[in-house]
Amino acid sequence: MPTPSTDIDLALAAELGQQLRVDSVRASTSAGSGHPTSSMSAADLMAVLVSRHLRYDWDNPDHVGNDHLIFSKGHASPLLYSLYKAVGVVSDEELMTGYRRFGSRLEGHPTPVLPWVDVATGSLGQGLPDGVGVALAGKYLDEAPYRVWVLCGDSEMAEGSMWEALDKASHYKLANLIAIVDVNRLGQSGPTELSWDLDAYRRRAEAFGARVFAIDGHDVAAIDQAIAQAGDLSGERPGVILARTRKGRGFSEVEDREGWHGRPFPPDMAERAIIELGGERNLVLRGPGPAEAAPARLDRSGAEVKPPVYDRGQDVATRKAYGETLAALGARRDVVAMDGEVSNSTYAYLFAQAHPGRYFEMYIAEQQLIAAAVGVGVRGYRPFASTFAAFFTRAYDFIRMAAISRASICLVGSHAGVEIGADGPSQMALEDLAMMRAVHGSTVLYPSDATSTAALVQAMADLDGISYLRTTRGAYPVLYDAGEPFPVGGSKVLRSADDDQVALIGAGITLHACLAAADQLRDEGISARVIDLYSVKPTDTATLSAAAAATGGRLVVAEDHHPEGGLGSAVVDALTMTGAGRSGLTMAHLAVREMPGSGTTAELLDEAGIDAAHIAAAAQRLLA
Amino acid sequence: MPTPSTDIDLALAAELGQQLRVDSVRASTSAGSGHPTSSMSAADLMAVLVSRHLRYDWDNPDHVGNDHLIFSKGHASPLLYSLYKAVGVVSDEELMTGYRRFGSRLEGHPTPVLPWVDVATGSLGQGLPDGVGVALAGKYLDEAPYRVWVLCGDSEMAEGSMWEALDKASHYKLANLIAIVDVNRLGQSGPTELSWDLDAYRRRAEAFGARVFAIDGHDVAAIDQAIAQAGDLSGERPGVILARTRKGRGFSEVEDREGWHGRPFPPDMAERAIIELGGERNLVLRGPGPAEAAPARLDRSGAEVKPPVYDRGQDVATRKAYGETLAALGARRDVVAMDGEVSNSTYAYLFAQAHPGRYFEMYIAEQQLIAAAVGVGVRGYRPFASTFAAFFTRAYDFIRMAAISRASICLVGSHAGVEIGADGPSQMALEDLAMMRAVHGSTVLYPSDATSTAALVQAMADLDGISYLRTTRGAYPVLYDAGEPFPVGGSKVLRSADDDQVALIGAGITLHACLAAADQLRDEGISARVIDLYSVKPTDTATLSAAAAATGGRLVVAEDHHPEGGLGSAVVDALTMTGAGRSGLTMAHLAVREMPGSGTTAELLDEAGIDAAHIAAAAQRLLA
Repeated sequence: MPTPSTDIDLALAAELGQQLRVDSVRASTSAGSGHPTSSMSAADLMAVLVSRHLRYDWDNPDHVGNDHLIFSKGHASPLLYSLYKAVGVVSDEELMTGYRRFGSRLEGHPTPVLPWVDVATGSLGQGLPDGVGVALAGKYLDEAPYRVWVLCGDSEMAEGSMWEALDKASHYKLANLIAIVDVNRLGQSGPTELSWDLDAYRRRAEAFGARVFAIDGHDVAAIDQAIAQAGDLSGERPGVILARTRKGRGFSEVEDREGWHGRPFPPDMAERAIIELGGERNLVLRGPGPAEAAPARLDRSGAEVKPPVYDRGQDVATRKAYGETLAALGARRDVVAMDGEVSNSTYAYLFAQAHPGRYFEMYIAEQQLIAAAVGVGVRGYRPFASTFAAFFTRAYDFIRMAAISRASICLVGSHAGVEIGADGPSQMALEDLAMMRAVHGSTVLYPSDATSTAALVQAMADLDGISYLRTTRGAYPVLYDAGEPFPVGGSKVLRSADDDQVALIGAGITLHACLAAADQLRDEGISARVIDLYSVKPTDTATLSAAAAATGGRLVVAEDHHPEGGLGSAVVDALTMTGAGRSGLTMAHLAVREMPGSGTTAELLDEAGIDAAHIAAAAQRLLA
Repeated sequence: MPTPSTDIDLALAAELGQQLRVDSVRASTSAGSGHPTSSMSAADLMAVLVSRHLRYDWDNPDHVGNDHLIFSKGHASPLLYSLYKAVGVVSDEELMTGYRRFGSRLEGHPTPVLPWVDVATGSLGQGLPDGVGVALAGKYLDEAPYRVWVLCGDSEMAEGSMWEALDKASHYKLANLIAIVDVNRLGQSGPTELSWDLDAYRRRAEAFGARVFAIDGHDVAAIDQAIAQAGDLSGERPGVILARTRKGRGFSEVEDREGWHGRPFPPDMAERAIIELGGERNLVLRGPGPAEAAPARLDRSGAEVKPPVYDRGQDVATRKAYGETLAALGARRDVVAMDGEVSNSTYAYLFAQAHPGRYFEMYIAEQQLIAAAVGVGVRGYRPFASTFAAFFTRAYDFIRMAAISRASICLVGSHAGVEIGADGPSQMALEDLAMMRAVHGSTVLYPSDATSTAALVQAMADLDGISYLRTTRGAYPVLYDAGEPFPVGGSKVLRSADDDQVALIGAGITLHACLAAADQLRDEGISARVIDLYSVKPTDTATLSAAAAATGGRLVVAEDHHPEGGLGSAVVDALTMTGAGRSGLTMAHLAVREMPGSGTTAELLDEAGIDAAHIAAAAQRLLA
């Protein structure tokens, strides 16, 4: 293993750049897949950065003093993996036989199955917002002098999320964040909007509060100077290095030519490219080691969380219970919260008041909200991000990618369904359960009362992966005594008898309607089981199966959500996909099937057919 | 009805501004809900615009020469509806008894149930991107001299989508688009990021290519001059009017104070507000009429669409069939296409080559991609928008809102599922079916071959609402003869016998696997029905029920998608929710349950357990 060095000269860095190009060509040609030309444009930038500036202990990727390096242009993975070879953590053999191969950690786009990768990239416009989150952690949580370097493509500057990122980086004075934009002029299908107009990029980045350095991205001295200046932590502005580069740089057959995005060179071309680039090299060298830093403040020991306690029958909104529980959870120093400028609606403001140093206002920028959560999660913190449930749809790509990043983040969406009333459909989450259930490895929770909310919010703080909790706007009676356990994957049977003829299944607002319906049915001589399916994913198949068995398969599911992919789907998936449905089901599925407008909660629940009267009537029809 | 006038003087416009404030207070107080203060800040802006500049025939909202007025800050609906009263199209009684009430067209946030509303707003950051679409139609399709005025909030300038919009507006030289930003300094939960720093907004907007006018938003003369200049169509830059305003303007108890976002005044406060604002008024007046314009080019008559024809057995990628069919559909002058800078992957480039005047490159900005589709749809065009299926997740909020906008747009996503191979999970759509099924009124299609793709793409062009078609990367055999009908909501039974013991259900890549599995099973003496479920939503319940009945409920569903919300859910929802599942189902559900990496298509389909061997094995297990 090479020892850290700070005296790699520019000539050697340039030589390294050529090696990175050669290896990017070799890796992608060997795989028959990948993006060599997008790697070649940025090779000099990364060679200078990694050999002379990036503070990193390659043998200890978890060192709190390590700089972070994120490839927002994740398709330049050949370059990233060639860098890993150059610092001696990936062998040439692995690069040549692993890249893009089945079972290999050198995936087509970087993912954190590699210990040096913070976040998965490949959906453009996400690496820089993720970097904002890491930089927030560095400046405000770790209080460590690491820098976050993000290699960006020029095409992805068309994504609004990149400007959300720069906006937040300047708002939070993140001098520790540096975007290096590889302006190679060519996108996938043709030239970019702004081509090589570095002045246009400069005006935009400066207007958004960045310090901008415009350079020739193949001039190692200019690169070196810009990186040295941009990496200075003494200021208050994020850095943006605009590097004019040439796609396919160094191989005359493709350099700056269209039609070569995402195309590996055939072997004969690769051979010519390697010759033109000066042949194979096997430099192994490292740049500076990590900065000295105090340990991160992640200690959970001694954190005494005193969750709120609610009295049965008391009217409490689950969103309020969320805020109160979150504020209590803040006793854990790893717990961090953020919101999309609606904290007075989501009740996240209670955490902000109690723990202002660990609350980040993301304003109305839901993509950056999720990315910030992912980014602070990279540093081991446990983020809770909240907004209206409907507005998480704004960030679905970020949530999907967070799962690929193996992030553990807690999302809490308020104002679910038509229950919200007068504001109308734009504010009503009616797709959120479907969206969140479809995320890999996700947990989806939908409590009906304050006690279960408090329990589930605490459980979320230790769940792996993407967890989502849906809260309700209005205040409804507390159903459970404090201390009642609510295991993830469980459910509660609130009404049950040996002679149950039908089961009513709800969550959130519809559980209250199921209880009222069961009372009405009881008065009519019908015994109805009531199930609180607070854990939408994973689903309590055993309890549902028992209910189906007890009632001859007669189930009424009511949900304040569109009919597809929500509570009803969770129930039928659990019962049929597992074989439990073999004995047959007679379902009534009550969901929001027509476009709602404004109105009172009662009017809209009635119109959607998901209130107590409709649930009781559906049960009666099943028994007719 | 008042007659159009161009000589409403500024004093009268100011008087109108006060009326709009009074009516905004009255409407929201009468409803006990709404955003009076956010309406009051923008009242002078809208009074001057509508009385002196907006070219509009209020009795003929479909006039092609009408300007367009979009409230991107949809929560200012009291102001919008008060404007409608002022021009005489909504009565005071409707305003006072309808606003935010059940069954009323005056919803909490504007929707196109009103004839003067182009698009639903209320999810911030969407009205301006939608306006880009309308402006594109005006400049390039209608070639009409209308202007698109968009009232924006200052809080929503934190949404990246607003900058995607300005970027595209300047790229496409949309001088006919004017954003009027109501900089009232206060968001929902506190001050905005940039407060009243109009210079900061100016730098950003100018850097993104706009002509900027910074004014006092309560000075009617300044407003008048800025609107007159910004509305000039002779230039090539979009206009941005930055108006410094005061939230709650005109009522000293709330003006410029925190804590009054989204809160109607109690009746006694409202009374004091109305007195301070000078009392009720009932001005009815109209500004200039529409511009003269030639009829829009929406004539479909005489359009001879010659769809491509494919030979059975020929290997053709469905994405290619999409591009070829779309290019043929371009014979219809109302058909427009756009793409997110991956047209060479989605094959939308074939349309771009054939009909360059009706193709819009949206670069890597998927939110703006959808908004542009919605916007040209406002003008009656039929947009097809394409990108990688995975990247539609970026725009889910826009798709959801498009449904509320009653838009009819056609979305086509390529590169679905693990089938794509080496690129890895960031590029694999594995949530798209769940996401699209949950959209209100959506149609979800997933063809397996080129013939069905060609038929379904043609069908999409006449579907109402949001339609989505999922295409596959690789080339697979054509299964159907040209001319075979593929009704939306149908399916195809490709293998069937009286003694079928099991049914194999697939779509896209997995249908080919089902066919291979059926062949294998046949060799083992097992008769398997094979169903091509090309219409995922609506679902062909009759064919599925018949298959369940014929096979004793033994169904294998295989899908290249996560287990939740996709093909499997469509099948079990159809069979159980409708009561068809009463006889019991014995399902095997093969889906992508683990996080994929890179690999070949065959390796990844095998690993996910959705290839022919796994389908056959699952069928055998059901029969064991």
